[in-house]
Amino acid sequence: MKINTLVIVGVGLIGGSIALAARRRGVAARVVGVDRQPDALERALRDGLLDGAYSHLAAAAGLADLLVFCTPVDNIAAQVIESAASCRPGTLLTDAGSTKAAIVREVRGRLPAGVEFVGSHPLAGSEKHGPAHASAHLLEGRLVVVTPEPDTTDNTLSQIRDFWTALGARVQVMDADEHDRALALTSHLPHLLSSALAGILPPELYDLTATGFRDTTRLAAGQPALWSAIFRANQTHLLASLDRLDEQLRRFRDALLQGDQAALEALLQQGKQVRDDLSHR
Amino acid sequence: MKINTLVIVGVGLIGGSIALAARRRGVAARVVGVDRQPDALERALRDGLLDGAYSHLAAAAGLADLLVFCTPVDNIAAQVIESAASCRPGTLLTDAGSTKAAIVREVRGRLPAGVEFVGSHPLAGSEKHGPAHASAHLLEGRLVVVTPEPDTTDNTLSQIRDFWTALGARVQVMDADEHDRALALTSHLPHLLSSALAGILPPELYDLTATGFRDTTRLAAGQPALWSAIFRANQTHLLASLDRLDEQLRRFRDALLQGDQAALEALLQQGKQVRDDLSHR
Repeated sequence: MKINTLVIVGVGLIGGSIALAARRRGVAARVVGVDRQPDALERALRDGLLDGAYSHLAAAAGLADLLVFCTPVDNIAAQVIESAASCRPGTLLTDAGSTKAAIVREVRGRLPAGVEFVGSHPLAGSEKHGPAHASAHLLEGRLVVVTPEPDTTDNTLSQIRDFWTALGARVQVMDADEHDRALALTSHLPHLLSSALAGILPPELYDLTATGFRDTTRLAAGQPALWSAIFRANQTHLLASLDRLDEQLRRFRDALLQGDQAALEALLQQGKQVRDDLSHR
Repeated sequence: MKINTLVIVGVGLIGGSIALAARRRGVAARVVGVDRQPDALERALRDGLLDGAYSHLAAAAGLADLLVFCTPVDNIAAQVIESAASCRPGTLLTDAGSTKAAIVREVRGRLPAGVEFVGSHPLAGSEKHGPAHASAHLLEGRLVVVTPEPDTTDNTLSQIRDFWTALGARVQVMDADEHDRALALTSHLPHLLSSALAGILPPELYDLTATGFRDTTRLAAGQPALWSAIFRANQTHLLASLDRLDEQLRRFRDALLQGDQAALEALLQQGKQVRDDLSHR
């Protein structure tokens, strides 16, 4: 696909990083941003993330060859459906949302002929937010999960795959529900835990924290509105992941209650094994 | 206190870092290491962490003005008591253990006249271990909690305080049990959580982890034998901290089950507030 006009909807950390990487790598002839916040657009234009900026989605959608929605997960489906009405036939739409099943389900069967949506999730991010933290390198070497539907053509899937690859990312194709089940454990549960742990620390103990507490709670600095929407969109799988964690915590609790050194060591070794495996990849 | 001979018992990451900082800063005329592992001593001598090395504790204890025990928490009390028998009157002993109450309780009343022990805990560390990772800067600006007993004299406390300050650390004096209660929440619980989370990740999901999972589980790479001993030594307070976390996780679970966006956001905001406060300190 030759992309003349790439439209980024939501010019925050992820949207801004995609825009910047696309400009630097010549992935599109022009990169246009849409955002409801004039400050974000102004900043993105000033920092050279964008060639052009629009405050209204429909106006930009009519120009697009490819639209990428980098907005909160609870807004994406409605924005996709709304903007598709203004798209020319042949326009492709994708997103960068952290959950996929609810979005693809909501969009399914709602787009005009010739306009297609395929869900994507770049596994890249930060507890920081806003276009000021955008980086052309954010996606380099990162995995992007792409979740085609049964009626997605090979040609469409190839175009989406090529887009992410051109930005320096790797692509893995998965079923949307399978994605959500996996990410509940690898991303949403760590966020929930990090936030729960941070939330129970009383101010009088702040001085008694060291790097361990800070690393374990880094994710808790993320934006509550974005993450509560992600949690709700992935409610079932997140609850199932929380059940698995509860079981493991119960094993720790039992071993502690019994003062069972061997059991504690085995549990800690189980965690260390996974962590060491991850470090060596 | 003029320290002629500083003896470091257990020349790993912490012991090695204390030794190196003491040599660089001229805190003692000579720094001597004791370790059961000849490799660790050899490495520490070669890297200039030590002036001298001993494989047997009693031999080194007789030379010491100050001994610092940097061994696993379940070994410290016995080693303190054993070595005190070889110490000259006026020798001071302290440690770097992550728990304090069990150690000071076990040592209490067991030392010869003129030989004193005061518990210490430098809040510095890493998931790495061994003298190869020692750094003269590990303690710089870090907090060391010192836990005197009712019969600890002001002079003795001053000497311990001056020692840690001379290494670049800050000192806070606390009751040993109060220390353990606080560290259960700020250090031991984060370690347990990190390990529990890592432990439930199946290998087929490794590819779907990003920096969030990795940061949240960094602590899980620590040594299981060291941490199971810490958990056991701080059993009661760690269980109480786990109860507090369980309550917070239950609040998240209830909000999720009810799809209660406002409640989820409030819980996430509570964690963010603490995390942001910590970042701005």
